[in-house]
Order: sequence, then C-alpha cells, then structure tokens
Amino acid sequence: MKKITILGSTGSIGLSALDVIEKNSQLFQVEALTAGKNIKLLKKQIEKFKPKAVAVSKKETALKLRELLTNKNKVKVLYDEEGLKEVASFPSSDIVISAIAGSAGLVPTLAAIEAGKDIALANKETMVMAGEIVTGKAAKKRVKIIPVDSEHSAIFQCLEGQNIKNLRRIILTASGGPFLNFTGNELKNVTLSQTLRHPNWKMGRKVTIDSASMMNKGLEIIEAKWFFNIDISRIDVLIHPQSIVHSMVEFNDGAFLAQMGVPDMKVPIAYALTYPERIMNNLQSLNLVRIGKLEFGSPDMKKFPCLRLAYAAGLCGGTAPVVLNAADEIAVSAFMENKIRFIDLPGIIEKVLNRHNTVNDPSLEDILHADLWAKRETGKIIERMM
Amino acid sequence: MKKITILGSTGSIGLSALDVIEKNSQLFQVEALTAGKNIKLLKKQIEKFKPKAVAVSKKETALKLRELLTNKNKVKVLYDEEGLKEVASFPSSDIVISAIAGSAGLVPTLAAIEAGKDIALANKETMVMAGEIVTGKAAKKRVKIIPVDSEHSAIFQCLEGQNIKNLRRIILTASGGPFLNFTGNELKNVTLSQTLRHPNWKMGRKVTIDSASMMNKGLEIIEAKWFFNIDISRIDVLIHPQSIVHSMVEFNDGAFLAQMGVPDMKVPIAYALTYPERIMNNLQSLNLVRIGKLEFGSPDMKKFPCLRLAYAAGLCGGTAPVVLNAADEIAVSAFMENKIRFIDLPGIIEKVLNRHNTVNDPSLEDILHADLWAKRETGKIIERMM
Repeated sequence: MKKITILGSTGSIGLSALDVIEKNSQLFQVEALTAGKNIKLLKKQIEKFKPKAVAVSKKETALKLRELLTNKNKVKVLYDEEGLKEVASFPSSDIVISAIAGSAGLVPTLAAIEAGKDIALANKETMVMAGEIVTGKAAKKRVKIIPVDSEHSAIFQCLEGQNIKNLRRIILTASGGPFLNFTGNELKNVTLSQTLRHPNWKMGRKVTIDSASMMNKGLEIIEAKWFFNIDISRIDVLIHPQSIVHSMVEFNDGAFLAQMGVPDMKVPIAYALTYPERIMNNLQSLNLVRIGKLEFGSPDMKKFPCLRLAYAAGLCGGTAPVVLNAADEIAVSAFMENKIRFIDLPGIIEKVLNRHNTVNDPSLEDILHADLWAKRETGKIIERMM
Repeated sequence: MKKITILGSTGSIGLSALDVIEKNSQLFQVEALTAGKNIKLLKKQIEKFKPKAVAVSKKETALKLRELLTNKNKVKVLYDEEGLKEVASFPSSDIVISAIAGSAGLVPTLAAIEAGKDIALANKETMVMAGEIVTGKAAKKRVKIIPVDSEHSAIFQCLEGQNIKNLRRIILTASGGPFLNFTGNELKNVTLSQTLRHPNWKMGRKVTIDSASMMNKGLEIIEAKWFFNIDISRIDVLIHPQSIVHSMVEFNDGAFLAQMGVPDMKVPIAYALTYPERIMNNLQSLNLVRIGKLEFGSPDMKKFPCLRLAYAAGLCGGTAPVVLNAADEIAVSAFMENKIRFIDLPGIIEKVLNRHNTVNDPSLEDILHADLWAKRETGKIIERMM
C-alpha cells in the first residue's frame, strides 16, 4: 500500500490523481492533501479519502474549513507556507504528487524532497525555476522524481533501460493548441473562451492558455533539460495536432522511440505512482486504425513568439527561466481578467526578460527574489498598458 | 573487437552487415563467412575482409573457389552442411549473423547456438520452424539471440528495460507492399517485376515477394511469438504504408512504445552487433516534418489470405508453421520461374497445410521431415497445375 500526499488536490491533476487512487484502493491510500481556497471540494475529499492532514493557503480559509468539518478530530488542518511544508513532508507518506499550479509549487515540493519523499512531479515550475537545486537535492536525498507531464512521462518511458549516453536528442510533441492554423491577423482578436478550448487535453486554465501561446511547450523544454540532464540545443519541438505521440527520443544510431496513447492525464499519473510497474485502467485503448493518421510539422516561432522566448531563457539559464515563468503567470492572469489581449502576452514577457539582470547559479533566495521582482515588474507593465 | 561470422554473406543482409563492419573496423572483425554459390562475390569478400574460414553449399563450388583464390593458404574453404556447421561454430567467433535465406538457415544457426555463439538473427525461418527448440537451446547455452528483422528489432528496443509482464500486445507494422491498394481483380494479373518493386525496403527477392503477399508479415507473427514469448492472439498487424514506425508494443496501462527510423537494414544490423550499445552511422536522420504524416490501417485478410494462413498455422503450432514456410518457399520459387501466378500462392499453401498431419512438440527431426514433405507436396501440386 503506497501512502500518498497530494499538493493541490482540488486542481485538474489533483482530481485525476484522486480518481486513480479511488479506482486502485488496494494499492493506494491518501495520507495528506492541500488546496488553495476551494474548501467545499476539499471537504468532500476529506470525507471520502480520510487524509490525516490537510493544508490550505490562508488562516481564515483553514478556520472556515474547520467549521465545515463534522468530525474535526480526525484530520489536522494546517495553513500558510509552514502548513503546506508540513503536509509536503508528512512523515508517514511515501510519495508526494506535486500538482499545485504555478510558481507556488516550488517551495512545498522542495520541502518534500528535503524530507526524502519520492515525487510525482506535475508542477513544471519546480524544474523551470530551480531545476539545478531540485535535481541536486533529489540526488543527495536519493529521491526519485517521476514526471507527470505527458511529454516528460513519455520521454522517461522511452529512456527506461536505455543508455543515456546514446541519446542524440529529445523531441517534445506539441498539439499546436487551438490557434495552430490561425493567421497572425486572426490571432489579434481571439477571445478567452476560444483560448480555453484546447483541441485534445482537458487541463487547468493557466496551462490551457499556455498551450495556446506555446509557452507551455517552452516551459516543458526547460523542464526536460533538468529532468533528463540534456542541453536545450538538443531538445526539439514538433507539432503533432493529434496529441497521440506524447513525445519521442532519438538515439545516436538514428533510431527513435516514441510513447503514444490516448490523451488522458490519468495514464501518466498512474505511471508515476506505480513506476516501474504499470496498472490497468478503464480507458479506451488507442485505436490507430480509427485515428488513421498522425501528422507532424514545424512550430512557427514567428506566430508563437513565446516558444522563442522560452528557448532564449532556457539557453541563458540562471534566473532567466524564473523571470520567463513569473512574467507569463502574471500576464496570463491579466489576460484571464480581460486586461490584455492574447497577442500581448509575448511582448510583455519579453520586456520583463529584457529588464532582468540574470543571476547565474542562483540560490533559492535569488530564485524567489527574481520571481517576486518579475511578477511586480510585469504588473507594472500591464498597468501602464491599460 | 567483436569477431563476427556471417552465414549468408553474399545476400542482401550479408552485404549490409559487411558494410556496417567495414565502416566500423575499429569495433568489428570478420572471422568467417558462408555463401551459396556466388563465389565471384565471395572471393572479393575474402580478399577484403580476410576471414579465417569460408563455407559454400557444394563441393564443386568449393573447388572452383579454391582455384579462384590467389592466396590459398590463408583461408580454410569448407562445403556442404558439415562445412556450414563448422563455420557456424567457428571457435574464435563471438557472434554469428544468421542471414542465410529460407529454411536452409535453421541447421547452421542451431549449430552456432550449440557452440555458445550469440546470434544476430535475420533468418526468420529459424524461429518459424523451430522456435521452441531454438529458444530452449539458447536459454540453456546462455546465448543471446538479437533480432535483425526491423520489426523484431523495434519490439526488442521497445521492451528493453520494461517488465514483460506489463505487456498487453505486440503490434507489427506492415507497409502493405506494392499491392496495398490493388483490387482483387488487379491482383490477378500482377507480374514478377511489379511484385519485386517494394515501396520502401530493399531486400532479397524471396522476402520482397513475401512482403507483397503479406506472408512475410505472417512469418513475422510466428517469429515474434518465439522471440518475445507471447501468444499469437496478442500479436496484431497494422498497415503503415510509410514504413517509418517499425513496430510497437502496448502495455497494460494503454501506453504504447513505438520504434521509428528510416527504413534501412543497416540500423537493426548494427544494433544487433553492438547491443546494448548503439553506434553512429552516416544515414540521413529521420525527418518527420518532411514525411508529414504517418498513416495506419487494418490489413485486408481477404485480399491477402497468406496473412490469415500464417495466423492459423501459428495458432495451430507444432509443425504447421514449418509446412506453411516450406510451401511458401516452393510456391514463391515457382512464381519467380513464371510457373504460377501471384494470386495462386495462398491457395497452394493452404492445400499443403490441409494435407498435413501436424506433429505437436516436434523434434528437430520431425521439423526437417515436415519441411521436406511440404516442399515435395507443394512441388507436386504446382506440377499438376501446369
């Protein structure tokens, strides 16, 4: 029986993870959960999965949750960063699913690693912001970090049992999002609801918008660099509108290995929890005959400059990816609030990147500082635009 | 330095293998070679690669070869089955590439296994005819058998490092050959030269004709059963006209792994020689953007009954695959000699299969007997048709 903690249990990945756990209750048990402020849903999860501890972001949310709970004695309710870290390092837990959205996921994930917990990593910002620190600490603590992102799970599966020194390059596939075939002109007038209509994947709002701008693929390049210890220059992006090939690797002899499957996050989540084993699920099997064809193309970095910015920030290294990510987080929030247009995203992020003095080999403090700085700076730029 | 013996050095696979060896002379050295009767080419190979021994099929061919050789003392020239077996088990050789075409490959390959040599297996008949004996003997002698067929090499690569108990099924891809989109009526009048025009692969004549009839895929199903210890019912065939995905596996969780690459036999040959390592080559890298799309479809067993016959023979087991293979060998020869039409192939093979009394758990003697019987029987049927 694996004892599981989920950081971010009320989000899209958290819900899928709980679904996997529920369907495999002979294998998994929920040990602790965290959520932001959706205490109505968290209450239901507490009643169903009976965790020993939960944490929410703020004290007042924690107080409200305590009031809602009928059997208060059975679950410890914690709050704020300290509470989050306590849950992340909960002693009896074997594996922590890091599924908090955005930069907020970094600190609790680091706490879990520090406590020696294996990590199922869905929070890509952990790697994007602090890949060197995270992988270094994981190695020191002998902690396994298994990717949950479908692309990185695919690459992880392709590399299993292979000698990494034979790896020539990694090829991340990208659906191209809802605007793949839009002209530059058409992109000028896209709405939020269009942007949220991903053709293949059901995901949270932030990552869905990032998919439409291709910033998501950009962040994944940086994530892959740290996950697989490979230079950015050896990570390529391939447009694949069907989202069936989740990613591929090429070896020195020209052989490719590709992982494929139906686009459902429950598969990589389950894999991360059961690795190196695999468990059955009730999803429909991939039917390549019905799909008929898998298409491939080059990404258009002119139409999707976020991808170019991510390559640049990844190549630059240091705190540049932190700033890229922070600026994107704030800009996407502003887009969701209708303050800016979709096509304003890359320009704003580029401005913030240009104003940043990159710190090389940053400490965690440097990283958190750059994150805060970039968020404020982005906010200022957006304010001036309105 | 790996010392290599090639059984069948003047055939298509043999030539590609020598090309790989020549380009990697720091890694490989030719120890011994065998050929059928093409002594002109064998002489050139002897002069270039300086093997310690060679064998040809007949005594008179050996005598002619000896006359041709200018420096007779340096190479031992052997002949007939005994000579072939002596070369196959040549003491100083590390690995034997089994690349003789057809049923003739079985006995020398078994001799090589008996002598404890690792095998790079291109001769699929070895597995089709005697899979149980071959895999049993290899396990006993701790001999590694690495597939050279691109499909089986692909599956082998996909399964590397994976737990075989998580395997749900194997999916062999098939180009569909030159007649994929022919109607049943059009198939009636195809010529030998049309049949020999494979859309993607350059191979020997027999296997090219088998590809056109899909018997090649049928034989590969039976080969896969033994290579990967999996029931025939869990081996599927998928039409994939581009021959880029060389084959795939599906695991219990619905995840697929696929191996892809340019269709060139030098890649799986090199892999079989260097496994678990990989070496660079000068082939063009696979460019999925240029290829654009990979298509998939179901095989049409009505139009290509050889595939159905192979499934049936594989499921039946015992000596049925031996008979399938032997009848196909003779029928394809007759087609090459213009004695029968392309569409006569499955009917002839089915007749022979129907006349055969299957022997279960056959000994090598039973297998060789069934092979001879089926060849004679097929000859008789063809004679009566003329």
